[in-house]
Amino acid sequence: MLVVQKFGGTSVGDLERIEAVSKRVMKSVDAGDRVVVVVSAMSGETNKLVEYAHYFSDAPAHQEMDLLLSSGERVTSSLLSIALQSKGYKAVALTGRGAGIKTNGSHTKARIEEIDPTVMNNHLDSGEVVVVAGFQGVSPDGKVSTLGRGGSDLSAVAVAGALKADLCEIYTDVDGVYTTDPRIEPKAKKLEKISYDEMLELASLGAKVLQSRSVELAKKLNVNLVTRSSFNENEGTLITKEENMMEKPLVSGIALARNQARISLIGVSDRPGIASEIFTALADADINIDMIVQTIGHNQNDSKTNMAFTVSADELKAAASVVDGFKANDEVDVIEVDEDISKVSIVGVGMRSHTGVASKAFSALAKENINIMMISTSEIKVSIIISQKYSELAVRTLHDAYNLDV
Amino acid sequence: MLVVQKFGGTSVGDLERIEAVSKRVMKSVDAGDRVVVVVSAMSGETNKLVEYAHYFSDAPAHQEMDLLLSSGERVTSSLLSIALQSKGYKAVALTGRGAGIKTNGSHTKARIEEIDPTVMNNHLDSGEVVVVAGFQGVSPDGKVSTLGRGGSDLSAVAVAGALKADLCEIYTDVDGVYTTDPRIEPKAKKLEKISYDEMLELASLGAKVLQSRSVELAKKLNVNLVTRSSFNENEGTLITKEENMMEKPLVSGIALARNQARISLIGVSDRPGIASEIFTALADADINIDMIVQTIGHNQNDSKTNMAFTVSADELKAAASVVDGFKANDEVDVIEVDEDISKVSIVGVGMRSHTGVASKAFSALAKENINIMMISTSEIKVSIIISQKYSELAVRTLHDAYNLDV
Repeated sequence: MLVVQKFGGTSVGDLERIEAVSKRVMKSVDAGDRVVVVVSAMSGETNKLVEYAHYFSDAPAHQEMDLLLSSGERVTSSLLSIALQSKGYKAVALTGRGAGIKTNGSHTKARIEEIDPTVMNNHLDSGEVVVVAGFQGVSPDGKVSTLGRGGSDLSAVAVAGALKADLCEIYTDVDGVYTTDPRIEPKAKKLEKISYDEMLELASLGAKVLQSRSVELAKKLNVNLVTRSSFNENEGTLITKEENMMEKPLVSGIALARNQARISLIGVSDRPGIASEIFTALADADINIDMIVQTIGHNQNDSKTNMAFTVSADELKAAASVVDGFKANDEVDVIEVDEDISKVSIVGVGMRSHTGVASKAFSALAKENINIMMISTSEIKVSIIISQKYSELAVRTLHDAYNLDV
Repeated sequence: MLVVQKFGGTSVGDLERIEAVSKRVMKSVDAGDRVVVVVSAMSGETNKLVEYAHYFSDAPAHQEMDLLLSSGERVTSSLLSIALQSKGYKAVALTGRGAGIKTNGSHTKARIEEIDPTVMNNHLDSGEVVVVAGFQGVSPDGKVSTLGRGGSDLSAVAVAGALKADLCEIYTDVDGVYTTDPRIEPKAKKLEKISYDEMLELASLGAKVLQSRSVELAKKLNVNLVTRSSFNENEGTLITKEENMMEKPLVSGIALARNQARISLIGVSDRPGIASEIFTALADADINIDMIVQTIGHNQNDSKTNMAFTVSADELKAAASVVDGFKANDEVDVIEVDEDISKVSIVGVGMRSHTGVASKAFSALAKENINIMMISTSEIKVSIIISQKYSELAVRTLHDAYNLDV
C-alpha cells in the first residue's frame, strides 16, 4: 500500500515527538507500506517567525514572509529524515520544490497548480521513505511560496493525489471526527466513515479537524483521507466518497458554531434590486454572509419587506457599518442586531433520500422550549439559529433525537 | 560605489541587532552606494539545529544537514529585508540559489563553483538592496548545499568578486586586525591596511578575525576586504593586494598560537627516505604538521639524526601514536614530547626586501631570558617556538622591539 502520512505541528512539537513519529513511520514501512511523510513546522515555530516579522512591519512583504515561514517545515523534514536514517531506514528529506510541488504566484496564499511526482517516485522506487516539507512549493518566478493556513494538509492531499496513494492519513491531536463535540456531549461517538460532503458541512460549521480547502481537494482528487491522532493507536475516521459508504446514515453529526451574529433589516424598500445592492455592498467589504432570510414586511400597507442575515461575530461591526449606509439613505427603517446567537446544524447524506428529518429537530427543540430564530436547509444539512445560551442543550437534544450515541 | 556588507551571527543576534544592521545598510544607501548584504544565521541558531540533529544521530546525512542548517540564514535574510522595506527602502531577500550561487556537490562543505550575477544585478538596477542568505548555494543535484565553517564570509567574498564590487565589508564584533592581541598587549594598534599574504599568515597563526579560506578567495578574486565592527562606527582594517599598500611595513604584527606541541625524535635511522616515511604516515593519519627541524644526531658515531616537529596540541595524541610505530620498529631510539609550548610569529611584507629582521627578535627575546626552542622562517614571517609560560612576555617584547605601538 502507498500511504501519505501528514503530521501537524503538535505531532512534531519537540524532538521526543519527532522520534515518536519516526517510530510510527517505521511501523508502516515494516508492514510493507511505501510511505511519503508530509510534515508541518514544530508547533510554535511559525508563530514565532510571524512575531519576528511583525517586530519590523505590520505588513511584511509576501515574498519575504514565504522565505521566512517556509524554513520551519524544512527543519522538521530534515530532522525526521535523520531520525529514520539513524534507525537504519532509508529516507530522504525534500523541500516543496524538491518534491515537485508547483504553485501559482500568489505568495503567502499560493495554490498548488501541479505536482511532478517523478522525484518522489524515484525515491520510493529506491525503497526510501520520502519526507516532504509541507506548506510550501515553488512559484512560477522560481521562489518559494507558502500555501496559507492548513497548508501542510493541502500538501499531503495533493501529494497523495499526484502519487495515486491508497490513503492519506492526517495525524493531529484528536482521534477523528465525532458525531458532535465530546466536550458538549460526552456520549458523542467517533465516526468510522464520513463522506466528503458531510465533512465539508461539518468543517465549515466549526468542526476543527480538517479545513474545508483540504477536504475539497481530497474530493476533487478522489483521495481517501483518514484523520487520526498521533498520540495513540486508535483508528481514525475515513473521509471518502459517498459511493464508498455502505450504509448512508440519515444524520452523521451535529455541529455547533458559536460567535454568530444576526442583523435584521426591518422595513426595507421593496424595490427591485435592493437585496442585491445590499449583499453586493457586503461582499465588496469582504464580509462572509452565512444565512439569509427574507420575510413579508411588518407593515403590509407600506409595501416594505424585512430581511435578516447572519455573519460571524468578528465581522459584525464591518457588516453593521455597511447596512447603516442604507439606513442613512432611507432604504431601511430599522436595523436590529443579535449578538448572542449560535448555529446548530444537523448533517447527513441520508437526508438526500429521506424527508421529515428537519421536523424531528424542530419538535425536539420545541420540547426543550428552545426558540428557533432562523432556519436554512441544504441537501444534506439543516442549520438552525438559536439563542447562544441554549447551545449545549440544543446539541445534546439533537444528538439524542437522532440516536447518535447508539 | 558597489559594496557587499556581510554581517555575522552576533551582528544579527536578535531583533534589535537586525534593526541596527538595517540602519547601517540604510546609511550606505543614503550615501549613494549600491548595497548587497550577506547575512549569517542569528547567533546560536546553527548550533541549536546541530544539537537537534545530534539528538537523533551522531553522523546525520550531509544532505539532510544542509537542508536543516540552511534555514537559519533564510530567516535572517527575510527579516533584514522586511526591516529595510518597513523603513521605505526597496529590498529583496534571496537564498543562495536565488542569488545564483552554484556549488559543487560536496554537501556540508561545498565549494562555490560559479556565481551567476544576473538576478542580483537586475535587483540592484531596480534600486533594491539585495539581501543574500549566506553560507549556502545550490549543488549540481539541485539541492541546497552549505559551505562549512566561515561559509557566510566566503559567500560575501564570492558575491563581491562576481559583482566586481568596490568593497567587501565583513562586520563582526571586533574592530579590525591589530598589531597583536590587545588582551596581551594593551598598546596593540589597529592596522589601517594589511596585505592578503600578511593576513593569511596572521589568520593561520591564530588571529580569529577572518578564516584563511575567505582571505585566499579574496586574494584570488582581487576583492578589497574590510573587516570592522557592527557595534561601533570605527574604521576597520583594509585587506588588499600588496601593490595597493603605499608603504610596506617591515613588520605588521605579532601573532601568537598557543596549544602547540613538539615531538622530538632522537636517534632516527639515517637511511634515505626515513623522514619521508614518517611524514607520509603522519599525513595519512590526517595530522597537520607545522614546523619541522632536522639536526645532526646526538651521537655522531652511530650516524643517526634527530628531528623535531610541532603539531597543535589536540593532534598530539594521534601524532605520538604514529611515531611510536617507528620506535617499535627500532627506527627511532627515543621520543620526547613537549606539551607546554607556544609559537610566536613576526609577520610583515617588508621582510621580503629587508634582512636582519629575525636577528632583532632573537636578541630581544634573549634579553628577557626567553629560550628559543625552534625557528622557522618564510618570505614574510618568522616563527619561534618558546615555552608556553613566556607567551605574553614574548609577544609584548617583540611588539616593542619592532615599535608597533608607535
